[in-house]
Amino acid sequence: MEMLKQRIREIGVVLSNDVIKLDAIMNHAVDPVLTTEMGKEFARLFAEENVTKILTIESSGIPIAFAAAQILNVPMVFARRKKPLSSDSAEIYSERVPSFTKGFVTDIMVAREFLAAEDRILLIDDFIANGDAARGLIRIIRRSGAHLVGVGIAVEKTFQAGGRTIRETGIRVESLAKIVSMESGTIIFE
Amino acid sequence: MEMLKQRIREIGVVLSNDVIKLDAIMNHAVDPVLTTEMGKEFARLFAEENVTKILTIESSGIPIAFAAAQILNVPMVFARRKKPLSSDSAEIYSERVPSFTKGFVTDIMVAREFLAAEDRILLIDDFIANGDAARGLIRIIRRSGAHLVGVGIAVEKTFQAGGRTIRETGIRVESLAKIVSMESGTIIFE
Repeated sequence: MEMLKQRIREIGVVLSNDVIKLDAIMNHAVDPVLTTEMGKEFARLFAEENVTKILTIESSGIPIAFAAAQILNVPMVFARRKKPLSSDSAEIYSERVPSFTKGFVTDIMVAREFLAAEDRILLIDDFIANGDAARGLIRIIRRSGAHLVGVGIAVEKTFQAGGRTIRETGIRVESLAKIVSMESGTIIFE
Repeated sequence: MEMLKQRIREIGVVLSNDVIKLDAIMNHAVDPVLTTEMGKEFARLFAEENVTKILTIESSGIPIAFAAAQILNVPMVFARRKKPLSSDSAEIYSERVPSFTKGFVTDIMVAREFLAAEDRILLIDDFIANGDAARGLIRIIRRSGAHLVGVGIAVEKTFQAGGRTIRETGIRVESLAKIVSMESGTIIFE
């Protein structure tokens, strides 16, 4: 998606060879025009899939997932993230995942009532690096019996294994911008 | 806003005399039609105010604030919340606030670069109870030198002091649904 790549070139702050800060458009401030276009693009890519629900995880995935939910006219559910404490219960699916950017382990949780076996879920998130959060969400979807139609990612860092390992399990992953390298601070898209 | 009150009557789970769970429309699952309408209503209420930026706090305020940002065509900024650790720095405004629903103290943070003295800020959040988060955000806005045009709240619990105490400081607070009582599990709107 050219508009997203252009904005990343303009505002992206490369902090190291594998960390880029997109606070000005996605992770702290949110550009409503760009985000609405990203939502439209995901809705277009998965238009044939009869999506019944969009799943994301707090917080940066929420605006993008919501923009897609507006177009597809389906509910959006955001998984909750908290420090290890909780565990599975009668009401909650919980999975423990490490976070690449945060550097610690969190539990991610979705209330069972919001994932039904009949659901066709589109998973949306802002970034994919190692893919731990996405894999945790995919495990939750599997356990609910719902069907995962695919994964929509705003920014994939293809030099980290997340997107690839999920594709290798047969799941469709669509990324709007793929960064192949950020070495020496230069962002190179696929 | 009648549509919101109707949905609260349908899905609200009163957990105690002062806690209501709206997970099915706002705090875990998000209804895109209702949320878009809430965004439109805030945009209408503050249409004359030349809003340049919308500020909210992760996570449940994000979809509503984003929906308003789409209509007003201005950036949305979501404050970050984390456990006490951080403090003010050259880059960040930070305020320590207790959380009524979470039961612990958190630091809320906004990067200085996203609040300018010329900004006209509309503050949006999902709930107001004791108003601690809102007051923390208001302190951050004051410190940035930006002008706060008002506060938009989806659900105000008027039997808790948050909305009233902020109005008493001369700030305009608009709430789309005002709950005056939930005693014995019966939701009564103003």
